[in-house]
Parts: sequence; C-alpha cells; structure tokens
Amino acid sequence: MLLPGAVDLYVGNPDWRVFAMTSFTVGGLALTVILATRGPAPRPSVRLAFLVVNILWLTLGFAGAMPLYFSSLPIDFVHALFESVSAVTTTGSTVISGLDDLPPGLLLWRSLLQWIGGIGVIALGLFVLPYLRLGGFSYFRIESSDIEDRPFARFSTFSVALLGVYFGLTFLCGFSYLIGGMSTFDAVNHALTTIATGGFSTHDASFGFFEDPWLIWTATIFMAVAGLPFTILAVVAFRRQTDAIRDPQIQTYFLILIGLIGVCSIWLIVTDQYEPFDAVTHSAFNFVSIVTTTGYATEDYSGWGSLALLLAFAAMWLGGCSGSTAGGIKTYRFVILWQSFVNNLKQLLFQRIVSPIRYGERVVSNEMEKGVALFIASYVCIWIVLSIALAATGLDIMTSLSGALTALSNVGPGLGALIGPSGNFQSLGDVALSILIVGMVLGRLEIATVLMLLTPLFWRR
Amino acid sequence: MLLPGAVDLYVGNPDWRVFAMTSFTVGGLALTVILATRGPAPRPSVRLAFLVVNILWLTLGFAGAMPLYFSSLPIDFVHALFESVSAVTTTGSTVISGLDDLPPGLLLWRSLLQWIGGIGVIALGLFVLPYLRLGGFSYFRIESSDIEDRPFARFSTFSVALLGVYFGLTFLCGFSYLIGGMSTFDAVNHALTTIATGGFSTHDASFGFFEDPWLIWTATIFMAVAGLPFTILAVVAFRRQTDAIRDPQIQTYFLILIGLIGVCSIWLIVTDQYEPFDAVTHSAFNFVSIVTTTGYATEDYSGWGSLALLLAFAAMWLGGCSGSTAGGIKTYRFVILWQSFVNNLKQLLFQRIVSPIRYGERVVSNEMEKGVALFIASYVCIWIVLSIALAATGLDIMTSLSGALTALSNVGPGLGALIGPSGNFQSLGDVALSILIVGMVLGRLEIATVLMLLTPLFWRR
Repeated sequence: MLLPGAVDLYVGNPDWRVFAMTSFTVGGLALTVILATRGPAPRPSVRLAFLVVNILWLTLGFAGAMPLYFSSLPIDFVHALFESVSAVTTTGSTVISGLDDLPPGLLLWRSLLQWIGGIGVIALGLFVLPYLRLGGFSYFRIESSDIEDRPFARFSTFSVALLGVYFGLTFLCGFSYLIGGMSTFDAVNHALTTIATGGFSTHDASFGFFEDPWLIWTATIFMAVAGLPFTILAVVAFRRQTDAIRDPQIQTYFLILIGLIGVCSIWLIVTDQYEPFDAVTHSAFNFVSIVTTTGYATEDYSGWGSLALLLAFAAMWLGGCSGSTAGGIKTYRFVILWQSFVNNLKQLLFQRIVSPIRYGERVVSNEMEKGVALFIASYVCIWIVLSIALAATGLDIMTSLSGALTALSNVGPGLGALIGPSGNFQSLGDVALSILIVGMVLGRLEIATVLMLLTPLFWRR
Repeated sequence: MLLPGAVDLYVGNPDWRVFAMTSFTVGGLALTVILATRGPAPRPSVRLAFLVVNILWLTLGFAGAMPLYFSSLPIDFVHALFESVSAVTTTGSTVISGLDDLPPGLLLWRSLLQWIGGIGVIALGLFVLPYLRLGGFSYFRIESSDIEDRPFARFSTFSVALLGVYFGLTFLCGFSYLIGGMSTFDAVNHALTTIATGGFSTHDASFGFFEDPWLIWTATIFMAVAGLPFTILAVVAFRRQTDAIRDPQIQTYFLILIGLIGVCSIWLIVTDQYEPFDAVTHSAFNFVSIVTTTGYATEDYSGWGSLALLLAFAAMWLGGCSGSTAGGIKTYRFVILWQSFVNNLKQLLFQRIVSPIRYGERVVSNEMEKGVALFIASYVCIWIVLSIALAATGLDIMTSLSGALTALSNVGPGLGALIGPSGNFQSLGDVALSILIVGMVLGRLEIATVLMLLTPLFWRR
C-alpha cells in the first residue's frame, strides 16, 4: 500500500492519504494479531492448513478492498470487495470504468494485488494443495526423489528460484512493453498483470488500447509462458535441464492453444472478418488470454460470430498448467481424463482391469484418476448452481452462464453485451457480485478447500 | 408398419402403399439376413454385444426413416432420418411442422417408433449395459442374489412382467386421456409417447393444444411414473413388494422434481406471470417433461424469464432413474457423485481412506465411483464438442449449446427462438441435423457404447 501511496503522493493525488491510513490500519491489525497469538506455534495439521488458506485469501481480499472503498472512487463496499477479490484471485473482472482517468495509485494498487495474488497461487499450487491431496494435485508433490535428483539443493533455494523466475519474467515483460512503445506506467502495470495472468488493464479498452502488433504479440508470448508450470520454468532457467519441459501437460497445453487459434483464424478468414495476419494475431492474443485465464481482450470477440463465441466459451473451462498462475480446470486434468476415458473403453472391451495409466513416467493411482474425474464433475455442478443463483437475480441466461464460468475459472470477462470483453461488471447488483465473489474464491482455491469449511465435520471437536 | 398402414388404408390415405412397400422391403431384408446368417449362433462376446447394440439402433433408425422419406411429406433423407432417430431414441425433437394436418398413419408411425424405442431402452438398461459394466451401470445388474430372493422365479417371467407394466401403463395413460376428453386417436398417440418419455405429439402446439388441467396433470403423473425404474414398478405391481421403492435414486428423483417445481412456481407467482394454481400446473408439467426427458411443452417456458430458463437448462442434464425410458445423466449417478464428493472431503480432512460409500444397502465399489465421475465429465466434454460443431454450421450460441444438450440427453426441445419449446428443428441444415443424430445416439447408448466402435482396438483381429 505504501508503494501506490508514494506514487499518488508524487503526482499530487490526495488518495495517498487513503493508502497511508489503510496501510497503518492493516499494519496495526496485523501487529495486534501477532501479539495476541504469541507463544508456541500451533501443531501443523490438515485442518489448520485448510483454515489458513481460506483465511489468507479472505484477508487479502478485504485488505485489498479497503483503499478502493475509502478512495475518491464512488464505489460501495461490495463493489470494492469484488474488485479486490477479482485481483487477488487473478481473475481480472472489473467493476470500475473510466480506468484511463483513474489516479495512478489506484491503478498500481489493482495491478500489485494481482501480482501478489499470482505469487500466492503458485505457492498454493506447489507447497499447499499437493500435500492436501486435492483433486489430483498430489501428483505435483515435490517428492523426496526429486530432492535426491537435486535440481535444487534445498527447499529455500527452490523458493528463491521460483521468485526469481516470477520477478525475472515480470521484468522482461515490462521491458518488452517499453521497447514496444508503452509508457513506463503502462508497461509496469501490464507486466504485473500479464505474468500474474490477471488481466487488469489501465485502459477501459483493455489491451485493445494498444494497436501495435509488437505489443500484442509480446503480451501473447508472456501470457502463454505464464500459463506454464513455474517449477519447470525454474528448473530450466536455473539448472538448464531443458528436458524438464517434456511434461505431458505442456505438450497438450500448446496443442490446445494451436488448435483453438488455428480454427478461429480460419473462421475469421473464411467469414471475411480479418486479413490473415490480423486474424492470427487477434485469435492468438484472445485465445491465449482466455486459456491462461488472463482476461485481456484486444477486440470484442463477441462479435466474431457463433463459432468463435463457442470456442471462447469452451476455452474458459480449460485453464493453463498446474503450478502456474492460471485458473480453470487445468491442462493436466484433461490429460488424465482423456487417458482415463480411453482406458475405460479398453476395460469395457476386455472386461478386466488393464494396465494403469501414466502421466509422464509415473503411474497415475486409481485414487488420483477418481479425484480428477470427480473434480471436473463437481466443477460443472458448481457452475450450474452459481448460474442458477445469478439468473435468480434477474440476469439473462448468457450473462448468468458465462459470468459464473468466468468467475469460477478466474478468466475475467464473460460473454454477452453486459459482461463481455467490451463490457464490465459495474452494472451488476450487490447480490450478483457476491455470488461471483464466491465463485472466484471457489475456483481459485480448487473448490474443495472452500467447501471443506461448510461441512459440519470440519468444525467438530 | 402394417399397423399405421392399416390406419391409412381405413381413412383412405394413399400413404398406406408406402407403409406396405416399406414393410415388405424391411421384411425382405430381414429374411435375407436371417437366411444368410443361418447356422450356429456366434459365441456371445462383449465385442458382439457392443456391435449388436449399435447396429440395432442404427437399423431401427434407418427402417423408421423409410416410410417418412417415401411418404407424401416433402422431406429429404437426412430430415427423415433425424425424425426417426429422434423417435427411436425417445428424444422427441421434430423436423415436421403442420402435425395437426398430417395423415394419421404417419402420426401413428412416429408414436409407435417412440414406444418401441422405449421398450428397447428399458431392455438395454436392464439386460445389456449392466453386463458390460458401463458407466456405473453394473450396480443394476440383476444379481444372482436377486434371483434367490425370487421376486420372479425365472428370467422370462421377469421380462413378461416388465412388458406387462409397460403395456399396462400405456393402457392406463390412454384411458385417462380418453376420460379427460381427448379423441381416441390423440389418446392412443399421446399414451404411446408419454410412457416412452418420447414427447412426440399430434399437434404443433404439443401438449399446449390441450388446455384442460385434468389432461395436463394426467400427463404429468404418467411422465413422472415413466421416469421410475421399471424393474421396481414390476416388482411392486406383480409381487406387491412396496418396500422396493426405497431405492435411493427414487427419493432423490422426487426431491429434485419437487425442488425444481417449487422454485419455478414461486418465481412465476412472484413475477406475476400466473395465478398460483396455474403456476404449479405449468411448472410441474414442463419440469417433469424435461427431467424425464419427454419433451412435451404446454407453454413456451422460454418466455418465463431468466431463472426459469436456467432451471430448464439445468434440468436438461438430470434425466430420470436408471431402468426407465428417460435419458440424461440419470439420478443414480448424481446420488453417487454427491456421496463421492462428500466422502472425498472427509478423505481430504482425515488424509486417509474412509469407509466406502453405499447405494441403498450395497457398497459402491471404487471402480463404480470412478465410472460415474468419468461418465459425467465425459458427458460435459462431448456436449461442448457437439456444441462447437453446431456453432461451426452457423447456429447461434444458445441454439448450439441447448441443441447439443437436448440431443445428448434425449429431451426434445432446446432453448431459444429456433429450437425452443415453441419452435422445431425443421429449419436446421443437414449438417447440423447429422450432428444432432450423432448426439442422440451417443446419449441413448450411454456414450461409451458408441465411442467404443471408434477405437482401433475394437476392430483389431
């Protein structure tokens, strides 16, 4: 908060007082909590891990909302909370219009929140969820065998390497934006939200504000990279073990991207909407943006016709790789689902258990196969429940269905006139926004982490 | 074919010649096949079972299309095949308008096809799929222990009892329609398509043609009954074992229906669209029609507002009970999915395997749990693939999404102006109809049965 506060002070915007005040408030509260909970640390337990993860995101969301709420923006608390949760979950749906005229401190605050949220998600996916055996995440446990292989001598070295990659990519991305002609302020903000696959922009037109192909392709490439597993990026960057990229989800991730971009480009060319180069440029940018759940848009793809629209809807489910900042169902789950399905056909045909499926070189346990299928089935059920809740607030069917999905997958824009790539979430009522807040947190914390707190069993004893 | 032919002959419609001709053709072809395949029967095998099931529905579809194609209707072959496949899969989507003026023979033919399709589905669900261990169907295997319990002394007695229930319900339903004031012809046709949960009507306005509450409630009740497991109906009817209805899927099925009807009725009353009695009547009829995948409509629920529309969309996934004529994902899968999910939360919390889930009194195997989750996840993926294919033919997003779903779930009408409850599938092109034909067969044969034929493994050796 002190950073955007300093920026506002520098440009002479009165909002610096808000940042100063909220930073003291949050700092004071934090100090109180630290003092009140002095003494030996509680014994680490699964229950505690679930509780901490939930509280962490909730606290971040509320703390992030404070400067927005107390600032000069005419915004009520639910809208401020929505914006903040959308930031820390790296979703990127916004309720603020007139971004181009917003004070720089607030813009930087939104971008910083996304960037911090991005680090949080990587840490969550690597250090917490795998140990909770969540939805097939256990595969990505950093096994003791990995430590024997010694890509990184110690855990702390590994964490530093991850942070290094995150910082490094952000810096590289910002630098490329600068070269492409962005102002320093825009370059910093967009670099922060590109690497976090967040998608907040400093312009109402989102990335469509920049019409330069260099900038569009730079963003496309950095978004695609940010959708890769950061563990693997760290290993490649610091240990030069390039064979690490032979992770099955990475191949599938690129195949999916190429397929979507290819089909959409052909559609745009055949329907005479763009010249070939522009068709590929805009398809690539927008589909990479959706699949990595960034949520930038260059063009309003709602107007690209039925096929492009349906591909965008389908892409909203996918998500990037595990260990990245992307949301959604995530590629590795589809890799395992596909293999499960093929194996199931074999099993039906031979009427006996066939050889187990593999993910890379490791055997996928039956428990994990079940976990993945269960995750996807639950994801769909929750999507429908959230959509019904949104429709009950009076939103039309397309806004409800795509709004629930974009929240759950942490994409950003939905489909339709209201919340599509050229709209925003400002006009939605407090109830609808609250439903979407629940959806964003559910998606970000891989569903079960949140629903766990709703079971009576969790609170027993 | 001889039956509708006789009706056409009786009323003096020239189409009787078409029925006579096609019945001889089909009879002749059947005779040729019988003669050509004389000799010892092939050894029963899983491969053969898959092949026979596919061929059976394909043959039924083509045979059913012949009278429509050669009749006085101005209809091309793909449209005729669509209508016929829609009939034998008990879907009920139609490409024919002007039903009120159609010759009685053709109308009866459509209804009979659905009725035969209904028997086929019950037989498939009870005698074939469980033995192929398909998508969690194995639970419904008629275990040797059931025979020891002797609800029916012999397998053939059981089959006769099932047919008895199917005939009996059809007769009762038709009789109730007659009492309510339907013409004999309408009563026969609607009885055939109600019990088959098919949904073909003899009127363009579907069941909305009959405004009498008695008729609407009669249809509601018989549709709801036809969505129950026919095994259990047979046991209750012939063996008076009323405790058989304590099947977990039956409770859930009624809870879902009551929930949907309740919420929709309140919505219709609150939004001032209907008086309370009419609100309940129309909600009950239309939601029972969707959940049992019948597809009759009294009113165009597309006009009921966002919440009703989204509930209709959600209801299209559900389906009735296993062992009924209904399509969709089916209630027992949701019962198991819910339990799997709750059990998964427990497992995450305690970080160890917890006691297995139960379905009624039996333990659900891990394999079956996985099968159910896998089925639902695949169902969604196939829905999205079919939707993309439909959108590529130029259909709008709502027509594509709901069209693919209504075909896959064998419901009948979709959502939107084109294929919604007040529209029909006539205006769709041959490519779109072909995609929907694939969808209907995939859904009816529980997906894997059809996809099996696409694996190279199936054809090896």
